[in-house]
Amino acid sequence: MSIDNSIPYKIYLTEDEMPAAWYNVRADMKVKPAPLLNPGTGAPMTFEELRGVFCDELVRQELDNDTAFIPIPQAIRDFYKMYRPSPLVRAYCLEEKLDTPAKIYYKFEGNNTSGSHKLNSAIAQAYYAKQQGLRGVTTETGAGQWGTALSMACSYLGLDCKVYMVKVSYEQKPFRREVMRTYGASVTPSPSETTNIGRAILKEHPGTTGSLGCAISEAVEAAVSNPGYRYVLGSVLNQVLLHQSVIGLETKAALDKYGIKPDVIIGCAGGGSNLGGLISPFMGEKLRGEADYRIIAVEPASCPSFTRGKFAYDFCDTGKVCPLAKMYTLGSGFIPSANHAGGLRYHGMSSILSQLYHDGYLEAVSVEQTKVFEAAEYFARVEGILPAPESSHAIRAAIDEALKCRETGKEETIVFGLTGTGYFDMVAYEKFHNGEMSDYIPTDEDLARSLASLPQIPGQD
Amino acid sequence: MSIDNSIPYKIYLTEDEMPAAWYNVRADMKVKPAPLLNPGTGAPMTFEELRGVFCDELVRQELDNDTAFIPIPQAIRDFYKMYRPSPLVRAYCLEEKLDTPAKIYYKFEGNNTSGSHKLNSAIAQAYYAKQQGLRGVTTETGAGQWGTALSMACSYLGLDCKVYMVKVSYEQKPFRREVMRTYGASVTPSPSETTNIGRAILKEHPGTTGSLGCAISEAVEAAVSNPGYRYVLGSVLNQVLLHQSVIGLETKAALDKYGIKPDVIIGCAGGGSNLGGLISPFMGEKLRGEADYRIIAVEPASCPSFTRGKFAYDFCDTGKVCPLAKMYTLGSGFIPSANHAGGLRYHGMSSILSQLYHDGYLEAVSVEQTKVFEAAEYFARVEGILPAPESSHAIRAAIDEALKCRETGKEETIVFGLTGTGYFDMVAYEKFHNGEMSDYIPTDEDLARSLASLPQIPGQD
Repeated sequence: MSIDNSIPYKIYLTEDEMPAAWYNVRADMKVKPAPLLNPGTGAPMTFEELRGVFCDELVRQELDNDTAFIPIPQAIRDFYKMYRPSPLVRAYCLEEKLDTPAKIYYKFEGNNTSGSHKLNSAIAQAYYAKQQGLRGVTTETGAGQWGTALSMACSYLGLDCKVYMVKVSYEQKPFRREVMRTYGASVTPSPSETTNIGRAILKEHPGTTGSLGCAISEAVEAAVSNPGYRYVLGSVLNQVLLHQSVIGLETKAALDKYGIKPDVIIGCAGGGSNLGGLISPFMGEKLRGEADYRIIAVEPASCPSFTRGKFAYDFCDTGKVCPLAKMYTLGSGFIPSANHAGGLRYHGMSSILSQLYHDGYLEAVSVEQTKVFEAAEYFARVEGILPAPESSHAIRAAIDEALKCRETGKEETIVFGLTGTGYFDMVAYEKFHNGEMSDYIPTDEDLARSLASLPQIPGQD
Repeated sequence: MSIDNSIPYKIYLTEDEMPAAWYNVRADMKVKPAPLLNPGTGAPMTFEELRGVFCDELVRQELDNDTAFIPIPQAIRDFYKMYRPSPLVRAYCLEEKLDTPAKIYYKFEGNNTSGSHKLNSAIAQAYYAKQQGLRGVTTETGAGQWGTALSMACSYLGLDCKVYMVKVSYEQKPFRREVMRTYGASVTPSPSETTNIGRAILKEHPGTTGSLGCAISEAVEAAVSNPGYRYVLGSVLNQVLLHQSVIGLETKAALDKYGIKPDVIIGCAGGGSNLGGLISPFMGEKLRGEADYRIIAVEPASCPSFTRGKFAYDFCDTGKVCPLAKMYTLGSGFIPSANHAGGLRYHGMSSILSQLYHDGYLEAVSVEQTKVFEAAEYFARVEGILPAPESSHAIRAAIDEALKCRETGKEETIVFGLTGTGYFDMVAYEKFHNGEMSDYIPTDEDLARSLASLPQIPGQD
């Protein structure tokens, strides 16, 4: 293995090189992402309408399509110092094993107890809630990654944190639940008796194990009906991509520091928080015509929003209580097959990324889950880190690109986002080891059925 | 919170500041640790006797009481670069919360998939096995931390790895088992049908859930009866403390870089691998009379080798197949109460640390497990990292020292080892959250009973 000693194996920025402002890619988009719509009136959601659900400063960030750089408050920068900068790692061992001329780098966001990049936005959202004098925040969580991140941020700031956890996960993933309890969050299995909508669902479906859509509805109800509470969300929203830009800004600063220019940038995509954050400053250069990069979104073949979805206004949640967003969607009623273990199961996609994809600034590929877990295990064995299934979608695509370079002989520089670790996903790994994992790709009929639920909006097919 | 901006929040060495040689504290000990004895003859174990069990270079390191610095082979240094240097973190938030004038630093070894410092020795032991042309190594594991580290190292080097995992852990902790399988290790629940001793135990106790002693015996048998295999061990041995000196060397280099002189150095102690590694260069200065430090070993009150054990020759394993070591021991038949969830359950202690403690270079304190988990949760909430129960013993002692400083007003500098993360220990945290955790301290009668099993050695009481 030949190591280039002029560049660190792992590039860490110094603390004074860390970003002092988030980058808002919307400022450089010629076609802005479509606004959220009020599902009742079909009109764009206003500041006044949104502030009952989200705290004020976050609504401002959500609606701000113009300010390119938004300073990161000092308290958040201090918190970032506890687990950032995250390293940009040269995957020497992977390159050697693949026998590729490609140079592969990954930005590793898993070195914190939440196990993922989610903490970058959780601390920001909790901070603004605290600044507004709120008592607490509510949210939903499926597997628990976002709930964990939020509970950590709230614990740090002394804010109450109510997490509605999909009942089946609450029961089957007790470890994530205990992590959240360690950080003082109250974790309620959803549906629950604590909300009107929860009680109604339990009455209608007494044995239900819950769904993310139901948990969102309960969390929103708990926020608007408890004085001093607001609802927070870990992906999809513009504000979340803004906070996650810290990933991309650090990545770019680390590359620039050593004069490295990437050819391809790869990220996994569920709701878009990681991908949007990782690519933002590179996308900015591309939008301004200053540089060109191939930017690839990787999604599961079992939940293929970009590659097989429709660019249309849709509900953000299966419960249909949230505003409408224009995005690539599979329909809010779409639920991936039960054998899908790899995360990224959201039916829609960030409006920002959807617009960029629609305008041709972004490629997308879909990968099947057994191929994803093969890549995950391969990566673990050569690079040491056991990756989250979500992150392993990006690994799969990076390996595929590196193998293409082996064929063509091109010395491309590939950068991908390693969003997190898989320590709480060992049930999925076990399935994979036992040969019990299968691939499922929705049929055209499946998608036509779930897309039939798109809301009726003037001007929408 | 007032942050000293002249010193990084987290001190990372640059890659060229990383240690190029391990430090062997035995070279500076006036009274050397007592040699391992052959349990049959009572004579010191020779190179020839040990090389059937351990690979040659490791036996040399085990027996070398004189060489102060042993170069770290380049391949191991390259592997270290994948997850090292580990950060030395200033615990600003903890200091503020405790309202103490003390300055607290911790060396965090949990940022790798094995979740602990164990990888530092695993890669070294696997490397020398590979160099010797061996096919593979065998070991035992209880909770799975060491087995995970070893499987990662073996996977990296292309070495076969056979792990005997205590059956009750194999069944109750399937996640660790799956991590090891991800890295290609074969994990066998112990006792098993694969060894003579396993078959004998199963015949005598058909329903047994196993013990660490039995797993050690099976692993040793598997090593000596399979051509091309050797046995490896994650703690207690001199060679392990040598490899773990990388922790202390990095810590000292980071402190020296910013002119920081610690007053107190604290580490948890089970078999001694972490404590021995963390303190080694500081102990070296102390032994040479160049500096003075308070050095504190922290052990569980339920398994108090230093504070209530006897300094005597004893079996290293409950199966009594290994050589005898002179150490602080509770007797090889000692088993901590079943309600002990906090790790560090070894009946004995590294011979090096035992000699240093005997000679007054080291203090020891014992802490009860509910106090340990209180400290763990407190630390998680203010510093963000969810610590391993083992590491939390050191946190407990560091907090107690910092609180003493609040009373005395002394601005002491406290450094402690945060050996790992608790992500696979959530069952213990759950017990703690549910108020189901209790403290158990062995009675004097309990200890007298287990100490009655000490072997009969000439000159030993």
